[in-house]
Amino acid sequence: MSTTKAPIKVAVTGAAGNIGYALLFRIASGECFGSDQPVILSLLEIPPAMNALEGVVMELNDCAFPLLHGIETSDNANNAFSGVNQAFLVGSRPRSKDMDRADLIKVNGPIFTGQGKALNDNAADDVKVVVVGNPCNTNALIAMHSAPDIPRTRFTAMTRLDENRAKSQIAKKLGMTAGQITRMSVWGNHSNTMFPDFYHALANGQPLTDQIDEAWLQGEFMQTVSTRGKAIILARGASSAASAANAALDHMATWHSGTSDGEWTSMAVASNGQYGIPEGLICSVPVTVKNGVWSVVENINHNGFAQTKIAATVAELESERSAVKELLT
Amino acid sequence: MSTTKAPIKVAVTGAAGNIGYALLFRIASGECFGSDQPVILSLLEIPPAMNALEGVVMELNDCAFPLLHGIETSDNANNAFSGVNQAFLVGSRPRSKDMDRADLIKVNGPIFTGQGKALNDNAADDVKVVVVGNPCNTNALIAMHSAPDIPRTRFTAMTRLDENRAKSQIAKKLGMTAGQITRMSVWGNHSNTMFPDFYHALANGQPLTDQIDEAWLQGEFMQTVSTRGKAIILARGASSAASAANAALDHMATWHSGTSDGEWTSMAVASNGQYGIPEGLICSVPVTVKNGVWSVVENINHNGFAQTKIAATVAELESERSAVKELLT
Repeated sequence: MSTTKAPIKVAVTGAAGNIGYALLFRIASGECFGSDQPVILSLLEIPPAMNALEGVVMELNDCAFPLLHGIETSDNANNAFSGVNQAFLVGSRPRSKDMDRADLIKVNGPIFTGQGKALNDNAADDVKVVVVGNPCNTNALIAMHSAPDIPRTRFTAMTRLDENRAKSQIAKKLGMTAGQITRMSVWGNHSNTMFPDFYHALANGQPLTDQIDEAWLQGEFMQTVSTRGKAIILARGASSAASAANAALDHMATWHSGTSDGEWTSMAVASNGQYGIPEGLICSVPVTVKNGVWSVVENINHNGFAQTKIAATVAELESERSAVKELLT
Repeated sequence: MSTTKAPIKVAVTGAAGNIGYALLFRIASGECFGSDQPVILSLLEIPPAMNALEGVVMELNDCAFPLLHGIETSDNANNAFSGVNQAFLVGSRPRSKDMDRADLIKVNGPIFTGQGKALNDNAADDVKVVVVGNPCNTNALIAMHSAPDIPRTRFTAMTRLDENRAKSQIAKKLGMTAGQITRMSVWGNHSNTMFPDFYHALANGQPLTDQIDEAWLQGEFMQTVSTRGKAIILARGASSAASAANAALDHMATWHSGTSDGEWTSMAVASNGQYGIPEGLICSVPVTVKNGVWSVVENINHNGFAQTKIAATVAELESERSAVKELLT
């Protein structure tokens, strides 16, 4: 294969973790940014994980990927983000047994102020950021506030996993393949309050609600999607890794290459006040993407059920924002 | 994406293991058989791993892969191989501390007689098999002998990981990317006796031996490649998974789509006596692939060093064959 494009630099944090391990090889193979786009991977880890990271680097090299034009590793965010065009912020402090969600938000705050500042000072002008590490919406909010020189539109958080889970459940219900389900947009927080908007989703181009009982959609479907992470842990004995990595790839690939005609996708982005979402909150909404720029889908009318669900998940995001307000300079 | 091709059925054994976990998502995404080729995954595991396998299936579904048209699971090889077009035999009994290689060969024998027979009785007429589980050459030999109705050309074992490791080491030495290294063929057994034929490999289309000191190639290079598996374990605390899965994908993708013009690849295939390799041994050689059919590269002249190395690795394969001769009906 002859590759004439200049390499792009792709940062991945938490690169020696399980999601990182499921993500890096697919980025290096060309799945995310195209089969003619060379990449340089820049991998950030915490000091205790640097040895394990070297093992991952050895395995990446052992794949002889034609598109992988270099690998850099660092435990310093300023180094890791130097000149990066794409940043996957996967690493975060996981919740330990005695922590509630508020504690989790607080311990992650300093990580994302530091990474936001490092991106601000070192990344390429065209940098695009997706936050995968949870609580991802609020982590993205903190990073965005710490990076005043980067346009706010470049900070996003990942709800594509929720979207994909929702599509899969609908496909199973209808005996279809997941590719037949479109416009399944997730609203709000990447948490169990998120709202998968089945009212505007389509199966084979037709409204879901013409094909599936609404009580099932409001009940079992939403319950299954919102508690899926816990169900995976119970079945695997480990949290979602390959499916989370896959959603991160989908998120960045769509941002890079665009949505297909008529399709929407879910991205948590800084609100401009649309749909009554407080300005600046990093909230998942349906978007279309063209030429690397996302636009919120306009003129969606929500019924009372959807309005209630969206209000609840937005309220959760507001309370998370309050909890970290001293970090939002 | 509109997909009009009929799905192919792809079996993976040991599907809940670490290599399986690194492999399945890439097959389902279309990386192996093409972005317009739907697949049905048929996953085989041993009974104690069926619960973990269900977790993997949940995550595969959670990716909403448009090309993934179905997933079947079984702990019975006859079921798992029913109608399969492509089979990745990844699962094998790993070596425990008190086992030597001969013991390992003996405990794996019954697995591969059973799987060979199950393929023979149930697979599709066009089935292609790659054995990844070690000792992969001899496991493939046993499976082939247990499947008299399947053409012998359809049983292969994987040495692509050795090839990729060799390419990567050369690229590093020359400051090139791995895609610039071609015709790096691995001869013999997938073990530390294998011979990566640097005499016929090219860097930027020119012989390696014009660009690198031969003493380094005969010494440090061969040593690094042949002991790479152990080095990965030391660095990661776990054996190669993503790089092994990647090599299995490369192996099957090349078999499916062909070698590019002028390029060779390494596959362990049943010898027809070429190059003095005893007939029927599953021995790695350089091949070209066109229309799904591999052909051994002819008229390669080996010097004395290469002849000695190839003789040693072939002798190891013969001794493995002797050790399992009662299974080769």
